[in-house]
Amino acid sequence: MTRFTSLLVAAATLAGIVTMTAVESRADRQAGQVFVKKIPAGYRDWRLISVAREEGPLDDIRAVLGNDAAIAAYRAGKLPFPDGTIIARLAWSLDASEENNRAFGRSQSFVAGSPKNGVQFMVKDSKKYASTGGWGYAQFDDGTPADDKVLETCHPCHQAIEARDFVFTRYAR
Amino acid sequence: MTRFTSLLVAAATLAGIVTMTAVESRADRQAGQVFVKKIPAGYRDWRLISVAREEGPLDDIRAVLGNDAAIAAYRAGKLPFPDGTIIARLAWSLDASEENNRAFGRSQSFVAGSPKNGVQFMVKDSKKYASTGGWGYAQFDDGTPADDKVLETCHPCHQAIEARDFVFTRYAR
Repeated sequence: MTRFTSLLVAAATLAGIVTMTAVESRADRQAGQVFVKKIPAGYRDWRLISVAREEGPLDDIRAVLGNDAAIAAYRAGKLPFPDGTIIARLAWSLDASEENNRAFGRSQSFVAGSPKNGVQFMVKDSKKYASTGGWGYAQFDDGTPADDKVLETCHPCHQAIEARDFVFTRYAR
Repeated sequence: MTRFTSLLVAAATLAGIVTMTAVESRADRQAGQVFVKKIPAGYRDWRLISVAREEGPLDDIRAVLGNDAAIAAYRAGKLPFPDGTIIARLAWSLDASEENNRAFGRSQSFVAGSPKNGVQFMVKDSKKYASTGGWGYAQFDDGTPADDKVLETCHPCHQAIEARDFVFTRYAR
């Protein structure tokens, strides 16, 4: 082997190691990512954090509810959220209400229609979900947990809001 | 007095009596209308009934919450609502969320901003509020009860939905 060839082999080997390491660490992250597969009990009784409207493909009106730990942390303005926090996102189609419009005398009223876009949860457990900032993600469509492929898209997006412990929704006073 | 004059006087007197009766019964109704002037305690902890979006002059996103009696009646689908029911309507400005839009990669997200259009209540007491279908109406702007003139506009509009015990909002499942 010429010296040049040796260098090429060394470089290729090094590149291979770097690439494999990158692939492995990505695989490790994926393998380490744990999702919530059991729907948190009683979430429809939780207190209101806020409401929102998504246009575009989601096209819904939504409510974000929190269990007692979530509400306490929000009201105290305390981050990170403690273990045991659960945040629920419910959503519905946004339907024009002819009934309301008649009473208002103008076309202006839209109400929650049918459930839409599943029910989503963030569950805080800093040990169990350590690989995703301490949050386990879940989505249930008619009570059925979504595929891991769907849930793998949650945390990459929530990383944008790491400064607020990965939670987008602010408390509505 | 000629016969014609007598008839005129009689007609005028009758018209006067009819007019006075109409005015009095309107005054009676107004006098009998009682409003809620004390803000119901703990309403921000109540459970969610539904969410809505009003366009036009109101231009808000809103949440309707209910105390335990309200939620139980809604879930049982039982009308009329029992005495003790209280329904709260909170509302906020609907603000575009640049933070969310960046995460979504498109302009689609609107969230609850500042409180708007006061906090409104319907309080059920079939005796106390008998003159308005058993409901007492309230609105608080920054904690201050609205004038009776404002509250007098509530029930005439809610009469449109007498078939559901004067309550517009349906429970969001």
